[in-house]
Amino acid sequence: MANRITTRCDIMLFGAMGDLAQRKLFPAFYQLERAGLLADGSRILAIARRELDTAAVRKHLMERLEKYVKPEEFERPVAETFLRRVEYQILDFHDEEGFGVLNSWRTEYDNQLIVYLASPPSMYGVIARNLSSASCCTENTRVVVEKPIGHDLESSRVINDELGAVYSESQLFRIDHYLGKETVQNLIALRFANNLFASQWDQNHISHVEITVAESVGIEGRWGYFDKAGQIRDMIQNHMLQLLCLIAMDPPADLSADSIRDEKVKVLKALRSITPDMMDTCVVRGQYAAGASTGKPVPGYLEEEGANNRSETETFVALKVEIDNWRWSGVPFYIRTGKRLPEKLSQIIIHFKPAPHYIFDPDQRHLANNKLIIRLQPDEGMSLKILTKDQGLHKGMRLRQGPLELTFSETFEAERIPDAYERLLWEVMKGNQYLFVRRDEVEHAWRWVDRIIQNWNDGGDPPKRYASGTWGPVASIAMITRDGRSWYEDA
Amino acid sequence: MANRITTRCDIMLFGAMGDLAQRKLFPAFYQLERAGLLADGSRILAIARRELDTAAVRKHLMERLEKYVKPEEFERPVAETFLRRVEYQILDFHDEEGFGVLNSWRTEYDNQLIVYLASPPSMYGVIARNLSSASCCTENTRVVVEKPIGHDLESSRVINDELGAVYSESQLFRIDHYLGKETVQNLIALRFANNLFASQWDQNHISHVEITVAESVGIEGRWGYFDKAGQIRDMIQNHMLQLLCLIAMDPPADLSADSIRDEKVKVLKALRSITPDMMDTCVVRGQYAAGASTGKPVPGYLEEEGANNRSETETFVALKVEIDNWRWSGVPFYIRTGKRLPEKLSQIIIHFKPAPHYIFDPDQRHLANNKLIIRLQPDEGMSLKILTKDQGLHKGMRLRQGPLELTFSETFEAERIPDAYERLLWEVMKGNQYLFVRRDEVEHAWRWVDRIIQNWNDGGDPPKRYASGTWGPVASIAMITRDGRSWYEDA
Repeated sequence: MANRITTRCDIMLFGAMGDLAQRKLFPAFYQLERAGLLADGSRILAIARRELDTAAVRKHLMERLEKYVKPEEFERPVAETFLRRVEYQILDFHDEEGFGVLNSWRTEYDNQLIVYLASPPSMYGVIARNLSSASCCTENTRVVVEKPIGHDLESSRVINDELGAVYSESQLFRIDHYLGKETVQNLIALRFANNLFASQWDQNHISHVEITVAESVGIEGRWGYFDKAGQIRDMIQNHMLQLLCLIAMDPPADLSADSIRDEKVKVLKALRSITPDMMDTCVVRGQYAAGASTGKPVPGYLEEEGANNRSETETFVALKVEIDNWRWSGVPFYIRTGKRLPEKLSQIIIHFKPAPHYIFDPDQRHLANNKLIIRLQPDEGMSLKILTKDQGLHKGMRLRQGPLELTFSETFEAERIPDAYERLLWEVMKGNQYLFVRRDEVEHAWRWVDRIIQNWNDGGDPPKRYASGTWGPVASIAMITRDGRSWYEDA
Repeated sequence: MANRITTRCDIMLFGAMGDLAQRKLFPAFYQLERAGLLADGSRILAIARRELDTAAVRKHLMERLEKYVKPEEFERPVAETFLRRVEYQILDFHDEEGFGVLNSWRTEYDNQLIVYLASPPSMYGVIARNLSSASCCTENTRVVVEKPIGHDLESSRVINDELGAVYSESQLFRIDHYLGKETVQNLIALRFANNLFASQWDQNHISHVEITVAESVGIEGRWGYFDKAGQIRDMIQNHMLQLLCLIAMDPPADLSADSIRDEKVKVLKALRSITPDMMDTCVVRGQYAAGASTGKPVPGYLEEEGANNRSETETFVALKVEIDNWRWSGVPFYIRTGKRLPEKLSQIIIHFKPAPHYIFDPDQRHLANNKLIIRLQPDEGMSLKILTKDQGLHKGMRLRQGPLELTFSETFEAERIPDAYERLLWEVMKGNQYLFVRRDEVEHAWRWVDRIIQNWNDGGDPPKRYASGTWGPVASIAMITRDGRSWYEDA
């Protein structure tokens, strides 16, 4: 897998003038160019409805690259080389006959065809059908699909059925960009290459797990879009359940895409369904009120621009998740995610059980469990909290908690950490699906999340308000405190 | 045990003008004074044969303190306060009647009496007897005894019998100054306060253990003394077997002196006796030849000042030690110690077994075991070698070994690490024996070491020469290589 060579590709990028393509995809392609990872002869067809031509689009993209690539990583000659690969095609996605023009671009049919759907998901079906009618794709074509795949199980099935009518599962690359993050992929190395951890990764040795994905920003300009989804659809159904799967999955027999995804699906199927009687103890939903963010006063969710002030959409969710299998029986996973929290922070904390017998000072007993803290951002790295002897002369055998620290950016030679999309695009070009989400993963995740949403709709309490700049509703703290635990705070 | 208060003590220090007392003991007492850990009214009677008086001795000690205490830790007013506690008594240790004078010093008999024997071990018996005859001590008196306790099992029994005729085992504090080192005591905290390690500390999870205690110096001025002992008596019988015991012992039920020492004795009793047929594979002895040390040419052991050039005394020993018990069956402990090695270094390396199944790149399989490196000196700390994902974009799921690092001096607020003797003196004043060596420990260690020496004397090969500035004879490398392993080198 260390092979640098990628196949020569023709990439049809639908939605090329949209926000995602401009902010993330073109900069990622540019970085692949810069790293010498785009095969000679690879080309990109930017497809959108707007009346533009290739020259204008290249000029526009140059400006975007200048804006979205870090200044120290922007090299104009590289950008120029890269943009020579890009051509523009005006296309109305509903215009079945119009798709014929795409074939004329495909002069060299031995290039691997990649269709990238960065358009709204509602367009996936029609684009797939029209590509098929125009004989644009073969069974070797790879199709990249952005989230969201629906807003519940039912609507995700419609989209997956439409895609499935034209493409087989082995052609579909469903993106969850969290899987492209280096620190997320590192979970696989960390868990399965280190027996020190692997041999203790179960209910015999771990008491509970925390996963926090906190944003400090609020909604800011996309209120209408977000309000239809809410935090549980936007963050839990995809990113956080993916993290949970990577932490909880059994060891795969190999690193093939299906071995890994089979194990993730086993976890999703084993998630204990949250019934109405569990809502009080296992689910907290919140909505941010006015408060302060990074020292400045900010409005509440209902006072944001464009807000409907009767909205009951959640901007915060905390869940206590139980996994009913042999490995995790009795080990709760406390997960929380929200907007307008005190900081931007993603971390996973593995709380190991204490030793069976304790021989040190009784008043230090609360220190007695080891913790592995995996920081996804910022300061990607790990910290293992262990106990050592306190050094003071008069301290006898007092303990002290010391971290064993590994910060990726500091520890290793100053190597650039690639953006998630760079990794994902590269894996698509290599034809490796292991960082992409399989249909059954999407559906099992929706099934579990739908149940919670259903409970809310069936007359749950409205979201609890929390002041912007706090860690969410007090109920989130109460949820974990009830179990004699607390959300981890770095001391 | 965090109690700062020590009892008011009267300390009789025999051999007060000797090298150990001057270089180590008085500076350690000074540090206790500086830390406020000497109770008001505590006093020291410096006892030696030399014709001096208290004023002259105090003046002399002030000069010694100025020399042996680090300049930034030397505070003249503290030294003056401390020296006011010191009085001098001329005494011939053989002069039974002369001991009567010691009683007149003991004006306040409610002070805890501590007798510190920093005299040659051959004097221990006569001093003990004379103290007893003069009724200087009671069953509450504590007696501190310096090493070496004999040069083999037989001679150690003589010394221990002489001491035992006057004092009970609970009164005797046998010093192995390694046990006073913070990093050595930390082994107890590390092993028994951290279940992450405790639960894997056995033959199921550990493949082998390395212990290295390397000195860069040669003999330098004490050739005659050293040549009678050799490295196995000087370093293995005491310090290195103590380290091995702390690493290998079963968890004690509590931190009491006897609980800990019972467990250490169990290890010593379980050491596999090295029979003549094992000498070729399990024992390497070496003697340094001329070479270079820290860039300068240095003479060989046989060319040192005062050397007998036919000496077969070893300055290097490497052993493969097996412990025949449930915890360690099949886990060799490779230990080595020597003089004129490339650096001054004491470290313990725990090599964990790899995971049962390996799913990463086959050519990285050699990385697949975790290692815990415990540095006793220099740079006291720990390093846990774990595998993480290599970050480069084109690296796929390549692994890379990264250390989780904890360096005591860096990680914790700049707190002074106390010298071993400070800790040990303080524990004597508190009456806590857990850092002192019990008679049966001494004897079991001698029994095991004597067997090796006997094999040498019964016609083993002479020591193998090694160039100064190298890691000992090639045979030491061969010994571990034969098992498909190698001495750890920091990459």
